[in-house]
Amino acid sequence: MDLERLARARAALATAGLDALVCRLPENVLLLSGYWPLIGLSFLYFPVAGKPLVVLPRSEEREAAQELWEADTVTFLTGILGSEDPHQAVGAALRERLGRAGPRRVGYEGSFESVAPPWNAGEPAVPAAATRALLASVFEEERLVDATDVLHALRARKTRAEQDKLRVANQIASIGLEAFLSGAEVGRSGVELVARVESAVAIGGVRMGGARRVRAFAQVSTGAEETAVAYRPMVISTSRRMEPGELAVLELGVVADGFWADRTRVRVVGRPTDVQRRAFAAVAAAQKAAIAAVKPEVTAGEVDAAARGVVRSAGYDREFPHVTGHGIGFRYHEPTPLICPGGGTLLEEGMVHSVEPGIYLPGMGGVRLEEDVLVTTGGAEVLGPCRNELEGRGA
Amino acid sequence: MDLERLARARAALATAGLDALVCRLPENVLLLSGYWPLIGLSFLYFPVAGKPLVVLPRSEEREAAQELWEADTVTFLTGILGSEDPHQAVGAALRERLGRAGPRRVGYEGSFESVAPPWNAGEPAVPAAATRALLASVFEEERLVDATDVLHALRARKTRAEQDKLRVANQIASIGLEAFLSGAEVGRSGVELVARVESAVAIGGVRMGGARRVRAFAQVSTGAEETAVAYRPMVISTSRRMEPGELAVLELGVVADGFWADRTRVRVVGRPTDVQRRAFAAVAAAQKAAIAAVKPEVTAGEVDAAARGVVRSAGYDREFPHVTGHGIGFRYHEPTPLICPGGGTLLEEGMVHSVEPGIYLPGMGGVRLEEDVLVTTGGAEVLGPCRNELEGRGA
Repeated sequence: MDLERLARARAALATAGLDALVCRLPENVLLLSGYWPLIGLSFLYFPVAGKPLVVLPRSEEREAAQELWEADTVTFLTGILGSEDPHQAVGAALRERLGRAGPRRVGYEGSFESVAPPWNAGEPAVPAAATRALLASVFEEERLVDATDVLHALRARKTRAEQDKLRVANQIASIGLEAFLSGAEVGRSGVELVARVESAVAIGGVRMGGARRVRAFAQVSTGAEETAVAYRPMVISTSRRMEPGELAVLELGVVADGFWADRTRVRVVGRPTDVQRRAFAAVAAAQKAAIAAVKPEVTAGEVDAAARGVVRSAGYDREFPHVTGHGIGFRYHEPTPLICPGGGTLLEEGMVHSVEPGIYLPGMGGVRLEEDVLVTTGGAEVLGPCRNELEGRGA
Repeated sequence: MDLERLARARAALATAGLDALVCRLPENVLLLSGYWPLIGLSFLYFPVAGKPLVVLPRSEEREAAQELWEADTVTFLTGILGSEDPHQAVGAALRERLGRAGPRRVGYEGSFESVAPPWNAGEPAVPAAATRALLASVFEEERLVDATDVLHALRARKTRAEQDKLRVANQIASIGLEAFLSGAEVGRSGVELVARVESAVAIGGVRMGGARRVRAFAQVSTGAEETAVAYRPMVISTSRRMEPGELAVLELGVVADGFWADRTRVRVVGRPTDVQRRAFAAVAAAQKAAIAAVKPEVTAGEVDAAARGVVRSAGYDREFPHVTGHGIGFRYHEPTPLICPGGGTLLEEGMVHSVEPGIYLPGMGGVRLEEDVLVTTGGAEVLGPCRNELEGRGA
């Protein structure tokens, strides 16, 4: 049981004037109960005082028993003959728990337009009209408060137990980085490297640090044209085979038991050109400078400026068109802290964010390097360290 | 351009008394525009008459140009410095398009609590408060109608072009089934088989039938204990190594350019026992009977009864605890037709659904076989056929 998390959550509820939270997004159920739902139909009632209640599919009972902190549980049948309407089952369980004296103000997940997939990433379950109707049937409408900001604020600073989980997620991600670095070769395609990386993570990740559910989402851009736009939010890896001297960029998201890592490596297959070397050196130096700037009480903008200054000194500016980093942990991208120009967020101990400067040049392609760092009193801790070379050993 | 789809959609809007639809879930943008969004921030305005409008991230412009049917497009910047608020950009584009005389009744995606992931499956974008606020800022609240049922009804019958896409998705899925059948061996683990299947699909699937974006979601249960509950909505594949005589069950979801296949194979590593053989034979016969029962004007319940009757004759009943099938196409699971006991839906030409009887026995484990079939005037067409044997050649 993560007592630090429970205490912080209760304090945040009190500060926000909320008597309870109702969550069903797996990322928030995990945050406040320790249990990472499989299909996303598990509901958590988290009161400011007293035991939480989790209403979950019977098929996840055993999994929940292994992960869930102290909580009351009620199960419902789903996915087989005789299944119950999940929303009705949850409503009934909530009504029974609350009796006549319900909470005055209840927070819910109103504004999550970016969500972490459940373990069942092929078919996420998300709140829509039926969930809102369920909430309205249990709580009076005027008592419901959109608690999205409260939840995101809570998530920004990770507890010691969560930091350990993110160390593991990043160690597992490093398996994928290694698979990429050792596998990027002339004649291979982006799709082949994606498969290689995702396989390595799935096979090597399960059991590492006790992880049980591991999945990777890799994107590999290859060649000048694809990598020159590898800063885009999502790319399409292709079956085009790499030719000597081409760049390959791996963007890797990894989830381990609900905790996310976000990492990037870059490789030239064969001998890099001078331009490629200079861009790589500038990006590596920018990343180093940003990481060195990380400590509590520094603003996100100062960390961004540290990276951007190095890139500028190297003669680039508009060629680094994205932010230096973003929060991460319970989702691939979390809003706090956003490491961007002028970013006013003060870094705090326990925050975890990416540091990912990049330079993208038409004709040459793109270079980006990304680590996840934990903000500590002593500065940045790079999570799950892994080697970082532009050129392969055999090149 | 899929004129059949456009004509059906316009007729459905007219019947429902809707002047337009606004969609942002990738599955529905694909349905009505041919373009499968990468990150899920693309909005489609689909009027009952006139050209549709798509408002999309600039980073997806090139992809959209390759896929999108005739439509007006407006782009916005996202994911880089200087990004716009997507909802404001979409709102402005919609207001400009509509002018003063907006539609009287506009359908929106109000009740999708199960969604297909976008191509960026690691971080789905879904509608929540900001999307509702956007809609309310463009259309008067009383003009907005939850069109979830209209959309699902439209999706139940696939056009000829969509049928072709589902043939391809199932051919690609068969690569994964083959990888499983040839790879299930003593000493291998469920996690290793998952990696093998997903890799094979990703590498072999890209370019097959013109597919560009392919991803597999595999689950492999192994051994009596895990496979006995392999009917659960989601399982956790483990690193336990298979021993001689054990069952392995592959549940495989595959998405190819937004079109889904859902398939299952089962294998005994080594020599099957008589009980395993009998269960497998009963399930195979049940599947054959159900597939033979499929034709237009037959009820879903009759197809279910065909499968369930064979299972019952073999001496099992409660050991087949789930439905015989479900609709599929624009998502892993679609609601129509649901092939279940007493299911009243009349099958229609163009419907696509799974046929997946199973028998699960404590001590022995579970056996399920799953194909996707297209309802044609001549009966069921099994999509992407693939071999189906309990026992490996080398056993």
